[in-house]
Amino acid sequence: MPQQSITLMKQFPKSRKVYVEGSRPDILVPFREIELSDTLGPKGEVIEKNAPFRVYDTSGPYTDENYQVDLTQGLPALKRNWVMERGDVEEYEGRIKNARDDGYKREDDPRVNEGVFPGLKRKPLRAKPGMNVTQMHYARKGIITPEMEFIAIREGMTPEFVRDEVAAGRAIIPSNINHPEAEPMIIGKNFHVKINANIGNSAITSNIEEEVEKMTWATRWGADNVMDLSTGKDIHKTREWIIRNSAVPIGTVPIYQALEKVNGIAEDLNWEVFRDTLIEQAEQGVDYFTIHAGVLLRYIPMTANRVTGIVSRGGSIMAQWCLAHHKENFIYENFEEICEIMKQYDISFSLGDGLRPGSIADANDEAQFAELKTLGELTEIAWKHDVQTMIEGPGHVPMNKIKENMEMQEKYCHDAPFYTLGPLTTDIAPGYDHITSAIGAAQIAWYGTAMLCYVTPKEHLGLPNREDVRAGVITYKLAAHAADLAKGHPNAQKRDDALSKARFEFRWEDQFNLGLDPELAREYHDETLPQEAAKVAHFCSMCGPKFCSMRISQDIRREAQAKNLAEAPEEVRVAIEGMKQKSEEFKEQGQQIYS
Amino acid sequence: MPQQSITLMKQFPKSRKVYVEGSRPDILVPFREIELSDTLGPKGEVIEKNAPFRVYDTSGPYTDENYQVDLTQGLPALKRNWVMERGDVEEYEGRIKNARDDGYKREDDPRVNEGVFPGLKRKPLRAKPGMNVTQMHYARKGIITPEMEFIAIREGMTPEFVRDEVAAGRAIIPSNINHPEAEPMIIGKNFHVKINANIGNSAITSNIEEEVEKMTWATRWGADNVMDLSTGKDIHKTREWIIRNSAVPIGTVPIYQALEKVNGIAEDLNWEVFRDTLIEQAEQGVDYFTIHAGVLLRYIPMTANRVTGIVSRGGSIMAQWCLAHHKENFIYENFEEICEIMKQYDISFSLGDGLRPGSIADANDEAQFAELKTLGELTEIAWKHDVQTMIEGPGHVPMNKIKENMEMQEKYCHDAPFYTLGPLTTDIAPGYDHITSAIGAAQIAWYGTAMLCYVTPKEHLGLPNREDVRAGVITYKLAAHAADLAKGHPNAQKRDDALSKARFEFRWEDQFNLGLDPELAREYHDETLPQEAAKVAHFCSMCGPKFCSMRISQDIRREAQAKNLAEAPEEVRVAIEGMKQKSEEFKEQGQQIYS
Repeated sequence: MPQQSITLMKQFPKSRKVYVEGSRPDILVPFREIELSDTLGPKGEVIEKNAPFRVYDTSGPYTDENYQVDLTQGLPALKRNWVMERGDVEEYEGRIKNARDDGYKREDDPRVNEGVFPGLKRKPLRAKPGMNVTQMHYARKGIITPEMEFIAIREGMTPEFVRDEVAAGRAIIPSNINHPEAEPMIIGKNFHVKINANIGNSAITSNIEEEVEKMTWATRWGADNVMDLSTGKDIHKTREWIIRNSAVPIGTVPIYQALEKVNGIAEDLNWEVFRDTLIEQAEQGVDYFTIHAGVLLRYIPMTANRVTGIVSRGGSIMAQWCLAHHKENFIYENFEEICEIMKQYDISFSLGDGLRPGSIADANDEAQFAELKTLGELTEIAWKHDVQTMIEGPGHVPMNKIKENMEMQEKYCHDAPFYTLGPLTTDIAPGYDHITSAIGAAQIAWYGTAMLCYVTPKEHLGLPNREDVRAGVITYKLAAHAADLAKGHPNAQKRDDALSKARFEFRWEDQFNLGLDPELAREYHDETLPQEAAKVAHFCSMCGPKFCSMRISQDIRREAQAKNLAEAPEEVRVAIEGMKQKSEEFKEQGQQIYS
Repeated sequence: MPQQSITLMKQFPKSRKVYVEGSRPDILVPFREIELSDTLGPKGEVIEKNAPFRVYDTSGPYTDENYQVDLTQGLPALKRNWVMERGDVEEYEGRIKNARDDGYKREDDPRVNEGVFPGLKRKPLRAKPGMNVTQMHYARKGIITPEMEFIAIREGMTPEFVRDEVAAGRAIIPSNINHPEAEPMIIGKNFHVKINANIGNSAITSNIEEEVEKMTWATRWGADNVMDLSTGKDIHKTREWIIRNSAVPIGTVPIYQALEKVNGIAEDLNWEVFRDTLIEQAEQGVDYFTIHAGVLLRYIPMTANRVTGIVSRGGSIMAQWCLAHHKENFIYENFEEICEIMKQYDISFSLGDGLRPGSIADANDEAQFAELKTLGELTEIAWKHDVQTMIEGPGHVPMNKIKENMEMQEKYCHDAPFYTLGPLTTDIAPGYDHITSAIGAAQIAWYGTAMLCYVTPKEHLGLPNREDVRAGVITYKLAAHAADLAKGHPNAQKRDDALSKARFEFRWEDQFNLGLDPELAREYHDETLPQEAAKVAHFCSMCGPKFCSMRISQDIRREAQAKNLAEAPEEVRVAIEGMKQKSEEFKEQGQQIYS
């Protein structure tokens, strides 16, 4: 059973959780509010009070000082009432869990009952017969759900805009009715770019405790979604612990668990075991499924001369199955039936790119784009059922070929949100693939990708540990933010401006705290100048006190303004007059620039 | 005196230094040759011998097992003969060194004689009266120098192309005749994108030994250039140790030392002390000078309403001087005389962007582009003297404004090489600015920037230590390489292909060794699967043995090819036939694909 690791969950320095209430008291949207210090003048006098700064907060109740963490009980069922009050769902007994769900062959295996999540007492929900409970369905009927209003407040948009984007299929709200613990969030190109963190144990290593810790750790640093990619034993149990304790949507790749149920033999997979796995995970509350429905028999030979063949696990499993049976992909063949399942729970599709390129050499090839076209056709089918859908993208792509990926995806997939892994812009830096991929991720997100799947420094080499998860999440947060800036998202630049102002004013603590990783920033600063006094020094370790360009620049401002204007050359005088006027304007607006 | 830290200089695993001889025996161009293992089939049989792979090598003689390192003697004077045999230079006594060069006030200060580099016995060289010894001058006269031939072999281009690019001003070869220890290298958009690593002590910390170590360390990881940005005491001595032991060109910002000579009071600077510093550094062998000649009096007020004012140290020093005296920048005023100095030693200009933006808010503003236009005018003056010139660029720029930087630079500066710091694409990630900036650096290099100045994780926070230098260099190497790929550099993709092939074939050691940081890659791999056996395993820790997509993909190839074709559906059969044919073609070409 997971330990309660409070160290993972503590709030950031000078930060507190605040909630903005919506149109009803149970719509309480969380933000992290960062307290800022005053701007001081050269004699230490207060020149300006800096208002606290609010940032989007993915960390869930864990960082609320009033919340009592109990991992064995899970988080509060925030959305439960919203789901129930719509009157279109029913409780039911649910599928009977069996030993095979966790990879054991016999029900009397003692390990079957070890580490089971003790907290959940609810029965699963599903749509009443003939009902459709997807957010897309409501949106298309013109309904603004509490989920949409929550998101509108979170994103700084209107609820109508949220509804319209969901109705058009340009955005999705992953929100399985059996995961009421999750705070509503949206994935779409007209909203903040989101990031996903992959966690999950494997046949080689990891355990439940570690995975729950990684999830809370990843969301503390800013992951908007978590995918549980567990393989090996205890998949069902691990997922239960994760979902019950997760304030962000959870995605999975159900074929991984299905394969475990047939002892890892791809040829032994079949529709029945896959379907059963979908139901199992639907009842647990998985918010989106990665489904490799586009790996068609006729596309497989297109990969034979690639440098790196098929690198997607799901894609290679399906390819092996197709070739072994000389049959078409059973997920593709049963896609409409899968839609019927998805809409009963409001699970979103993440249509997997099983044939994504695994090397620069294979980027944008025939196999990749053939599959993408099929994913577009499947999107239309999903939308016919009002099932929310996003599309997964590559992989390894050199910079000059990234834009084509976005353009083809928009063309084939009718503006369904794109969700990419990187792409990695070179193959030659194992150990640094969070960076090779962040370069591509920032670009493709600027071009319109809605969500980025993080890559950690361990990509291609091993399983990420806690510090790798942190590095991966922060790297992707900064890439996503760089894209928000480049796209001109109306709220994005405020944080850059607040941080840069703090930097220019030598408000060191504020600079740290406004950053994505306050703890690392402070640690780095302390390596060179550990004294507390240095945190208020008007210089830093790079130049030392005499040399500081920031300080000189401040002096220049003051001098320029203090000079007798009559002495100054014409062009300087005119500029300074303009500057003073601007300064007055700022003051009138309640802001203030340097004296 | 620096210790001989052999750990810094050791060769990479499975690598050895090789030299390619040019048209004369003293043109010996270094490469690192990486030995690769054989490709094995499913039963461990050898399917293919993989030829050793050669990569561009910046590490200098230190990684040559036949070279005996002695930091007190410095490196061999590789280029000395080439310079002498042209017959246009003369030895002379040189400027008399004084205590002030190292920041001491009295000649009898005992610290003046501490830590002086003991090795150099040569007198300085300069052009004979009326002569011009720049590579640009030779190129414009149609001469292919040994330096150009060396570079042609290193880059895989023709010597004529190298000459033409230098003659046109599109590329520079930083090569002070007093730094004969440096291996010739070129900076230009039609060559491999280069990277620069900044080192240097400050008033707060560091010492000579550390800086020499950082230089050898940075070049081991791939820095093409090093800038010594020392401030504080012992600037002259530190630089001497660095230059004498550096196989890459060294750049400086002479105003830093000039400022030390006037006790850090910008107002006390003058043309005489600056000119004297230029001569001092010219005689030592500095290959390029960053000169803030474009910070004009009338531009300074344009920065007054910026969020972060002037963030360039050199820029703020000059701005302060200009405002204090109400006079035009003395570097600008004396630019022609500086050109006269530069051409006597073949020092290149790096025209500094003293008004570069230090925050997203200030990107691409009036001040920045006003200065850039002036830098373009100065480029024309420098070229009139055949002085090699590159232009420095920002800074902090959101992705959507990066391209404009490149376009304006090309337009104003007539295709002189662009040398940028980042740019950082967001301000909100202190501690991760090697990444925020690598995103921008890769893009601007793709658009045409010739050299990237690295940013380390400590940017804005502290001075980089050894591990920060490594992280900064590797991050910028991968960004530069991503740009080479995107630009379609003819040799770039070979390394990606070799590494990806190794990855697909589970040649783990080869995958590590072909990467930019073999040691880190191996370390990361070993964290999850430490056993030696895992280095030949046909799976990795991410999926475990049953699940590996790479292995499945290989199996698919084999199965697809082994199947009785008659059984296969029409489209599969046709594809497989095509595949076999391709396979035969590959074999004929001496290559081989999977069995």
